[in-house]
Parts: sequence; C-alpha cells; structure tokens
Amino acid sequence: MPELRKDPVVGRWVIISTERSRRPSDFHRAPSAPAAPVRCAFCEGHEEQTPPEILAGRAPDSSPNGPGWTFRVVPNKFPALRIEGDLDATGEGMFDRMSGVGAHEVIVETPAHHASFATLGPEWLTEILLAWRERIMDLKKDPRFEYVLIFKNHGALAGASLEHPHSQLIATPIIPVMVAEELAGSAKYYGMKERCVWCDVVRQERRARKRLVSEAHGFVSLAPFAPRFPFETWILPTVHRSAFEESEVDELRGLAEVLGDLFRRIGSVLGDPAFNLMLHTAPLRAAGLDHFHWHVEVIPKLTNPAGFEWGSGFFINPVPPEDAAAALREGAR
Amino acid sequence: MPELRKDPVVGRWVIISTERSRRPSDFHRAPSAPAAPVRCAFCEGHEEQTPPEILAGRAPDSSPNGPGWTFRVVPNKFPALRIEGDLDATGEGMFDRMSGVGAHEVIVETPAHHASFATLGPEWLTEILLAWRERIMDLKKDPRFEYVLIFKNHGALAGASLEHPHSQLIATPIIPVMVAEELAGSAKYYGMKERCVWCDVVRQERRARKRLVSEAHGFVSLAPFAPRFPFETWILPTVHRSAFEESEVDELRGLAEVLGDLFRRIGSVLGDPAFNLMLHTAPLRAAGLDHFHWHVEVIPKLTNPAGFEWGSGFFINPVPPEDAAAALREGAR
Repeated sequence: MPELRKDPVVGRWVIISTERSRRPSDFHRAPSAPAAPVRCAFCEGHEEQTPPEILAGRAPDSSPNGPGWTFRVVPNKFPALRIEGDLDATGEGMFDRMSGVGAHEVIVETPAHHASFATLGPEWLTEILLAWRERIMDLKKDPRFEYVLIFKNHGALAGASLEHPHSQLIATPIIPVMVAEELAGSAKYYGMKERCVWCDVVRQERRARKRLVSEAHGFVSLAPFAPRFPFETWILPTVHRSAFEESEVDELRGLAEVLGDLFRRIGSVLGDPAFNLMLHTAPLRAAGLDHFHWHVEVIPKLTNPAGFEWGSGFFINPVPPEDAAAALREGAR
Repeated sequence: MPELRKDPVVGRWVIISTERSRRPSDFHRAPSAPAAPVRCAFCEGHEEQTPPEILAGRAPDSSPNGPGWTFRVVPNKFPALRIEGDLDATGEGMFDRMSGVGAHEVIVETPAHHASFATLGPEWLTEILLAWRERIMDLKKDPRFEYVLIFKNHGALAGASLEHPHSQLIATPIIPVMVAEELAGSAKYYGMKERCVWCDVVRQERRARKRLVSEAHGFVSLAPFAPRFPFETWILPTVHRSAFEESEVDELRGLAEVLGDLFRRIGSVLGDPAFNLMLHTAPLRAAGLDHFHWHVEVIPKLTNPAGFEWGSGFFINPVPPEDAAAALREGAR
C-alpha cells in the first residue's frame, strides 16, 4: 500500500509509492571512465579564464590568479544576479519586480579535475567548508543581502554545466521561499512545544535508527521521514545551532568527515549519480534562532519530477527512506 | 541587468537572468524521426496489456477492451495511489502519515502512436477534454477525494516513460500544496480588491499584449509575468470560472482550438521539446469560487532545475517571458 507522509517542518506531503518501488540497485549508475579534461576553465594553469579570485588557498610563493592553489573562489562568469547596483523595486501594473542585485560566486574546490567529496579527504573538505564560512561572513557585511545559499550541482541531470568539482554561492536581497517556509514551520513547532523541530527529528531518528545513515563527530546523516527524492539525505549537527557560519573549525572538521563518509556510501550504492547539495542556514540578519537548525540536504537526481510534481507540489518517491538508509548504512566506507 | 519578478498569485519570486539569456532558437530541438512503436501497451490491438477500461470512445460495433476506440481511460498499471482502502491517518512519534488512497488513471488519447496535441485536431481534442471532465465528475462522487489533478508528461526529460500520447489523472485525499497556495494567494487578493487575480492578469495582458500568445474562442494563452521555466505558457478562460468540470461543451471546443494552436506554435519554435501540462482547477468540494480561476499550465522542459532552485524555491529563467511570447506569436499555426 502506498503511503502519504508529511514533512514535520514545512508540511509538504510526499507519496512513498510502493507499487512503483525500486530496489537501490536499480539506480546504480556505473561511474564513467574519466575523460581527460578539455580546456577546463577551472583546471590549474587556466586561471585567466575565470574572473579574478576573491579568495583562495595558496602556497606562500604563489601569486593570485596563477597556479599554486588548493581552492579558488571567483565570481560566476555568467551570474544569475549582479553585484553592482541598488535594490530598486518597481511595478508594472499589478506586477512587482526588483532589480536583480546579488552575488553569484563559484568555489573551485580543488585543482584535481576528477576529484570529488568522496575522494578529497577530511583536511581538504575542511578547507572548502572554511571557505564557505568565510564567504558568508564577508557577504553578511553587505546590507543589501538577506540570505546566502550555498549549493553544489554535479552531473548534467542535476543542472551542472561543468565537470570540475565546484560549489556555488548566491546571495539574495530577499529570504528564499523554501527557507521562509522552514522558518515559519519551525517557529510554529517551537511555539507549540518550545523545542526545535530538527532537534526532535535528530533525537527520534537516533533512537529509532531505521532512517539513520551514520552518526559521528557531532553530526548525523539520515534519510528524512518524508523525502521528496529517492536517497535524499540530510546532515545535521547534533547540537542545536541556527547559523552555519557560527560553526567552529572543529565542528567543520566533523562535518567534513561526515560529508566524505556520506559521499563514499552514495558512491558505493549508486555509482556516480548526478546530485544537488544545498546548505540551509539561518538568514544573515537572524542571529541565534532557537527554532532554526542549520543542515545540509543532498538529493541524488535519479528520477525526473513530472507534471504531477510540478502541478501539485506533491512528490512521488519510489524508494522508502528506510530502504535508502539501510542501503547507505551497508555501503562500504 | 537581471530582474527579480514576483508571481502575483503565490508570491513566488523568479530571476529573469539576462546574463545567461538565450534566444528561442537555442532551445530548438529537431523532432526525432518517428520509430515504429515496439510492443506499445497503448496501441490498438494491445488492449489486454492495460487494466480494463473505465471509459472509452468506441465505435458502436466494438467491444470494451478490444480494438475500435478513439480514446481509452484505464487505471494506471503502476499507480502512485491505490483506489482501495480507507483513509487512515497514523503517527510515528512526531511524524504523520496517511494511507495512500487515491485514483491514478491514464487517458490514452488516440490509437495513433505518433500523434500529438499539435496534430489531433479540435474535434479529437474536444473528445479528450470531455473525457477529462467526465472522469472528474465521476471521482467527485467518492467522498474520500478532495482534489483531481490532470496532467500530461511528454518526453523522458519531463518524466514520461511511454511515448504513446496519453494524459494522467490523480485523485488525492488532500488538496495539493500548490493548489492550496494558489487558493490562499488568490483569496488574499480577492480580500483586498474584490476581484479575481487571474481575471486581472487576463485583463492586463490583453491590454499590454507583450506577453500574450493568442486569444480566441473565449481563451487566452500567455507567458506569465514571473515564469519558472523558459516558454512556460498558461491558458485561461477569459470569463471567470473556478471549476474546469463546469465547462460547457462549447467552451471545451474553444479550449481544444487554443490548445492545438499553442502546441503547433511550440512545435514551430522549439521542435519537439519534452513538456509537462497541468490542469489547475478548484478543489472538488469548493463550488463557484469567486477568487479561483481554472487554468492550464504548460512547461516545456528545456532546463534542469539545480541546487539553487531546490534549495531556495527561486527559479532562474534565462528567457524573459516577453521574448518567449513574441517567438510563440510568430510561430506558424
């Protein structure tokens, strides 16, 4: 019997579709043999193909925008939003528009074209996470911005146009609707219970264990109760904290361990799937929220949302999260 | 300069990204040469491969579940929801679930494997729309259901697993969140203005004409002000009506004309793109709403939503709707 499940934060319903259920192995996609990178703008030696770097991890004797780096943060060459300009709101009859002011940056995570979160190792990943933190702290100083969303696309199906390992950051002048929904849903829960809803999720899942993937270094990774997508996985700090950028270095080291571990599990179960990763953190101007709990969401792109999803906002998920978590738990590290 | 635009109904913001802007011709995908259908369960003569038909257009001398039909409605062989059973709501600690009761039907639109909304002609399309109406009227009698969503997926990128022309219907025991958002947004607008927001949209777009694609037979097709996707197009009746199933035959004939016309324009501009079509109508138990206006949404799948979209609920659209509408207006009929 299929089952409808409700996300406890935003109230989104999903259909866990047992009639269409598929085994984890049905989704396994063999990694393609790595091709030699052709004129990749993110490879070492091609620094002149990107806009000048904003931040980089560099050997002491190297020069900005030349070789000798571990990671580079550069403005997106084709930004969705533009950093220059004022925030102008205008109307067109009944419609509202706003100038597209924002920041759109790319974090080139390594010079190694074929590396991944599964292979980079915890020290390297920590450096990337520190770069995320530093960019958020810096953009927070710009009063035009209300939010910074950090995300990562891998594979064409997940919307990635470049193969070289990179994440992205978009700073926006308004709080994105999905974050607003999480804020509203979690505030409502807090109003009723005086507890953080994600703290309660972490507590219940650690006790029940059936949707838990791993717990270590102050973090849990788990399959959420009402996942939109097969193998959707969240990583949350076990101790309550609303803003990612308030994390200490040691905490980011823990996240690096858990991220690497999760992507090795995903690789073992699913091969080399396209995926999106999103960091959900508190709005820039909201400090120390009792009801919001920052977290990372990872969604492998194994199915295409169709007319039913786009028309209803319901998602049909053919893999129960208990099965996904069991497969990922068994996945070799 | 990129631009942020707000949907006047649900308040969703989209980024019209001029830096990444693409011309309509960049999206043109040549129709692939039709392959002979191989063991297609929806082709004439293969009726035994589907569950028994619920409704069909049949020659007087033909028998149910045999050849001699113009369209067939059958239960989905792999339903997302199941028609049998009671609506049980249960908990699992802090989580909520509900039994997956619902209907999931397939409308096989023609025996012609390679036909489409662009080629079927208005009489044929009217018969399909009448079948949609009849199925909604019938499912309305089942007190377990609150909503019927009719949709159509074409092409693998749009989530279609079968090539043969078909639409689908899912009846759900709860009102889908996207419809709930449209209901709430339009009720708020009505509360302020005492006018239907979609009536106002139709009025403004007919006057401004820059986002209008066509108007005829009591309907308009238009590119919405804040489209999520390139070439997203809506069809609305010009006269206010909240429920699709209250349409008279003559009105459905008008819709059939406008649908065929729109898909011929899409074909001329975009070739044979994957697309989703969704019918948004009022909930089954809500009659004659002053603030809700039924409409059809068509979204060609030309781009893949990525981490930014999934993480924020913002959509980045590289084609301004004014450009999309201009291209579709020029598209040959």
